[in-house]
Amino acid sequence: MTIDRTTLRWNGWGLSNQHNPLPEGASQWEWIRETLGMSRLPTTTAKPLSEIKLAPCRLAEETLDKLRQLVGGNQVKIDDYERAFHARGKSYHDLLYVRAGKLDMAPDAIVYPRSADEVLAIVKLASDEDITLIPYGGGSSVVGGINALAKSLGGAVVTLDTTLMTRVIQIDKVAMTATIEAGIYGPALEQALQKHGVTLAHYPQSFEYSTLGGWIAARGAGQQSNRYGKAEKWLVSAKLATPKGFWTTEATPASAAGPNLNQLVAGSEGTLGVICEATVKIHEIPALKDYRGYLFKDFTSGVEAARRINHAEIPVAMVRLSDAPETHFFQAASSTTSPTSLKARLQQAYLRFRGFNDAPCLMLIGHEGDGETVAWAQARTEAICKSLGAMKLGTGPGQRWYHGRFGSPHMRDPMLDHGLGLDTLETSTRWSNIATLKDAVASAIEKAIEANLPEPGGRGIVMTHVSHSYPDGASLYFTFIFPRQLDREVAQWQAIKRAASDAILENRGTISHHHGVGMDHVPWLAEEKGAIGFELMKSIKREMDPKGVMNPGKLLG
Amino acid sequence: MTIDRTTLRWNGWGLSNQHNPLPEGASQWEWIRETLGMSRLPTTTAKPLSEIKLAPCRLAEETLDKLRQLVGGNQVKIDDYERAFHARGKSYHDLLYVRAGKLDMAPDAIVYPRSADEVLAIVKLASDEDITLIPYGGGSSVVGGINALAKSLGGAVVTLDTTLMTRVIQIDKVAMTATIEAGIYGPALEQALQKHGVTLAHYPQSFEYSTLGGWIAARGAGQQSNRYGKAEKWLVSAKLATPKGFWTTEATPASAAGPNLNQLVAGSEGTLGVICEATVKIHEIPALKDYRGYLFKDFTSGVEAARRINHAEIPVAMVRLSDAPETHFFQAASSTTSPTSLKARLQQAYLRFRGFNDAPCLMLIGHEGDGETVAWAQARTEAICKSLGAMKLGTGPGQRWYHGRFGSPHMRDPMLDHGLGLDTLETSTRWSNIATLKDAVASAIEKAIEANLPEPGGRGIVMTHVSHSYPDGASLYFTFIFPRQLDREVAQWQAIKRAASDAILENRGTISHHHGVGMDHVPWLAEEKGAIGFELMKSIKREMDPKGVMNPGKLLG
Repeated sequence: MTIDRTTLRWNGWGLSNQHNPLPEGASQWEWIRETLGMSRLPTTTAKPLSEIKLAPCRLAEETLDKLRQLVGGNQVKIDDYERAFHARGKSYHDLLYVRAGKLDMAPDAIVYPRSADEVLAIVKLASDEDITLIPYGGGSSVVGGINALAKSLGGAVVTLDTTLMTRVIQIDKVAMTATIEAGIYGPALEQALQKHGVTLAHYPQSFEYSTLGGWIAARGAGQQSNRYGKAEKWLVSAKLATPKGFWTTEATPASAAGPNLNQLVAGSEGTLGVICEATVKIHEIPALKDYRGYLFKDFTSGVEAARRINHAEIPVAMVRLSDAPETHFFQAASSTTSPTSLKARLQQAYLRFRGFNDAPCLMLIGHEGDGETVAWAQARTEAICKSLGAMKLGTGPGQRWYHGRFGSPHMRDPMLDHGLGLDTLETSTRWSNIATLKDAVASAIEKAIEANLPEPGGRGIVMTHVSHSYPDGASLYFTFIFPRQLDREVAQWQAIKRAASDAILENRGTISHHHGVGMDHVPWLAEEKGAIGFELMKSIKREMDPKGVMNPGKLLG
Repeated sequence: MTIDRTTLRWNGWGLSNQHNPLPEGASQWEWIRETLGMSRLPTTTAKPLSEIKLAPCRLAEETLDKLRQLVGGNQVKIDDYERAFHARGKSYHDLLYVRAGKLDMAPDAIVYPRSADEVLAIVKLASDEDITLIPYGGGSSVVGGINALAKSLGGAVVTLDTTLMTRVIQIDKVAMTATIEAGIYGPALEQALQKHGVTLAHYPQSFEYSTLGGWIAARGAGQQSNRYGKAEKWLVSAKLATPKGFWTTEATPASAAGPNLNQLVAGSEGTLGVICEATVKIHEIPALKDYRGYLFKDFTSGVEAARRINHAEIPVAMVRLSDAPETHFFQAASSTTSPTSLKARLQQAYLRFRGFNDAPCLMLIGHEGDGETVAWAQARTEAICKSLGAMKLGTGPGQRWYHGRFGSPHMRDPMLDHGLGLDTLETSTRWSNIATLKDAVASAIEKAIEANLPEPGGRGIVMTHVSHSYPDGASLYFTFIFPRQLDREVAQWQAIKRAASDAILENRGTISHHHGVGMDHVPWLAEEKGAIGFELMKSIKREMDPKGVMNPGKLLG
C-alpha cells in the first residue's frame, strides 16, 4: 500500500482535499493577527500548477528509454505534476519557492523501482552516465534533503521514488526484529506490523507522510523516542544500493568487530546510496498507554524534572516540556473558554494561589508498556514532578495532545495563505547547557524577526519545547511564527535561520537533533564536525560515490 | 596514579608477586588432569627475561633524541624490560611467544607522553619519519591489538604508552558526564570518580590492568553492560591525536547532523590516531547492588529467561548464564565439598526430585540502583526465572561471583606452567540464532581440540556463557582448556582458533563482541563487513593516516 501522488498536495502538507484546521473566519485568525501586531492578514495564496511552466526535460530520450527498460515504462514519470511534486521538500523555505511557482529545481524524470535490484540498476546507470540521482521517500524533509539539485549546472536530475517498495520481508518475533523495504510509509508500516502484534512505534510528527528509509537517512526521532529510540538506535542493519553495488551492513548486536557501519548509514541522507531495506528493532504492542500533564512554575524546574526522570532510569516513552510561550499559545489556540470568562478567571486565581505566575509550563509525560510497569513508572515520574512543585493536570491534556499529535504540520498551509511565516528548528545539548542554549537561540530568532518585519509594530512568536531526552542531555525544538516580508520572503527567512544557527553553534548545540542537514544546515556542519571530521565525511562520500551522483549538495555541500 | 611496570608480569597477568590461586599441590590439579585425560601434567615454565636476547634497537640515535626532546629523556625507554613488556598483549597466542622468549616483535622504544600535546607531537614525528607507532594502554588485548608489528619488514617500531595521562579534566554532575585522560587504569579511574559520588561502572574482567582509552579503542564491555552500556554507548566524545592533527568528535546528545563519528572512534583500535581524552557518561554510585543465582534445567530455558528480561525492559545490571559444562566446572573448581560426600549426594537427590537432570545451568542476575528500583526489578526478574522452571539459589552464588569477578585471568599463568592451553573467544548474535551458534562453535572447538591432541585419550573442556544481552540478541563467551601440543603449540592454537572463527562466521555471529579485531580476527573481518564495508573502513584509515604508521596490521590487516 502506498499513497497515490495525485491525492497529495504537491506544494503543501497532506491530502489535497483534507479538512482545513484553520478555515476562513476561524476565531484564531484575529488573535494571531493581534499577537503578531499586524495591521491586517494579507491573502497570499499559492500559484496553481496550471500557471507554472516547467523547464524542458534535460534527459536524452535514449537515457529515458534505458530507465524504462530497467523498471518498466509505467514506472518512469516525466509529467509536470510528478516533476513539481518531487522538486523540493516541505520546509518553509521550500514552500516559499514552490508556492511562488519557482520550480527550477524540478527533476527531469522520476523513477519508481519495485525492488532492490531495480534500485541498484538505476544507481549504476546514474553513476555510469553521470546523472544526478535523488533518493526520495515521503519527501517530507524540512531541510532541503531531497531537493532536485543537479550536481553541475545544467545537468539532468532523476529522482528515485522508493514508495512502491513496501514489502515486509521478515518478522522475527524471537529476536524482535523486522526486515522491511524502505519505501513504506508510516501508517502502512504500522498496519503491517501490528497485525502480527508488534510495532516499531516510530511516530514522528511527519508519520503520515514519511517513510522508513527517510527516517533512517535523516536520523529521525519519533515522539516516543525515550522508549523506542531514534532511528540510529532501532536500526539493526540496512541494505543499500550504491554506485559500487549492494552494501549490506553488519547485523549482530553490539559487535566489537571494528566501527559499526550502520552508524554511517543513519544520517547518510542519500549521499552514499539508496536504502532499499532495513532490519529494525520491534516491540510488542504496548498493553497500556498513559499520557498525562503537569504544570510547572517555570521552564527550569520542568527541565530539572526531565533530567531527574532520565537519571532515575524510569521507563518512560515521552517527556515533553513546553516553555511558557508555547504553553500559552496552545492554550489560546485550542481553548474553547474565553480568557475573560468566569471559569478562566477562577483557574487563573487558583494558579496564583498555588504560587504559579502567569507563565506556567506544560509537561506531558507518556508511559507505554505492560500495566504493571506503566503504573510503577507513572508513580515515580509523578513523584519527581511533585517534588519540583508541579501541579497534576491528569490525563486530559495528555489525551488531547495524543489525539492531535500529527496535526501541527496541517496548520501551516492556511497560515502561509495569510502572509504569515512559520518555521521550526531543533537542536540538542547537555543538561548543564539547556537553559543557556534555549535563551540564546530564542533571543536570536526574536531579534532577527524584529530586524526583518514588513511593517512597524509587528513581532514574532517564538516557542520552545523539550521533546527528546537522554542521560546526558535533551533536544530543544523551536517554533516561530512571524509576519512575512512579502517582497523579500526568502531573504527574511535566511536572516532568521542564520541568526538561529549561529546561536546554536556558538552555544554548543548541534545543528540538528532529528531534521538532518540537507542543504539548509550545510554551512554549519563543517564547524560542528571540525575540519578533520568533516574531511573524513567527505572521504567516505568519495569512496562510496566516486562520481558524486548521489544526492549532491546535501549533508556535505 | 599509574602502575609501575616493574611490579607487573611482563609475560603474564597481574603483579609479579601476586597470590597464586593454583599453587603446586592444589587439589584442582589432579581433577584437571583427569578431566582432560592427560597421563601427567608436564612442567612448562616460561623463559626468564634474563635468558632472552632482544634484537638491537632499530631507531637512529637522532630519532631517539627527537623523541627525548618531545617528552623528556626519562619518558623514552629502550631497556629490555620495557621492550619485552610492550612486545605483545595478553592473549594465549601472545603468551606462547613471550613465554618461549620469542620477542622479535618487541618495540624499539617506548615513549610515555604526559599530555595530549606531547602525544600529537609524537604522532606527527612518527608520520613524518614513517615510523610505526603503537598506541598502548594497559596492554591487555587478547587479540593482538597492541603487538609491536612494524609496518614494513625491518622498520622501527615505537610504542606510545598512555598510562602517565590520568587526569580527570572535568566532572559535570548535571549532565552526568566526565572528561578524563585516556591512559588511566580502571581502579584509578573509579577511585577518582567515586570520591565525587559518581561512577563509570565499566568493569571488564581486565578492569585492574586496562585503561579507558583501550576500552574505547576495542569497543569493550563491562560485566554490568546491561545497565551501563558498552564503550560505544557510554562514549560521548573523544579527542584523538592523528597524523592530521587533533580530532575532537561531536559531543551533543543524539545529533542528526550526519553520521555520529564517535562510532568510528569506538572500535578504531589505534589505527586512526591515539585517543588522548574521552568524555563519558557517568552515574551516581548505586545505593544497592543485588546479585543472586538461579538454576535452570537447561541452557535453552535460561536463554529464554534472559531474552524475556530484556524484552520486558526490566532495569538489570547483569544477566549471566553459564551452560552446563561451565556450571559444572566452576562448581568443581570452587567447591569445598567432595562430590561423593553425603551433602553433595543429598543436593543431587533434591535436584533430581525437582526435575533437574545432571546438567543444570547457573544464571546470575545483578541489579544495581536505588533500593526501590532494585526491589521492583528483582521481583520481576525472579518471576520470569520461576515461570521458566528455575530454582532460586539466593544471593550466595551472586556474592561469590562478585567477589571473584576479576579472578579468572589470574588462573592462566599457573595453567600455562603445566602444559595446559587456555583460551577464550566471544561473539554475539540474534536471540533466534543463539542455540544454533552456540552448538556450532562449541562443537567446532571440541573437534579441533580432538584433532590436535598431544597424546591419545585426551580431550578438551569447552564452556560457554551468555554475559551481555540486548533487545535483539546476546553475546556468547567460550572458554576452552586443552592439553597443549608442546612441539607445535602455535599451530595447535591456530587450528582451534580457525575452526571456531569459521563456525562463527558461517553461523551469523560476529567475530568479536568485545575483544576487538586486533591481528587475530583480521582474516574474518572482511567477510563480516562485506567487500564494500571493508573497503570503506580501509578508505577511512587512508584518510586519517595516509602513511599507515598508526598501529599497522591491526583491524584491517
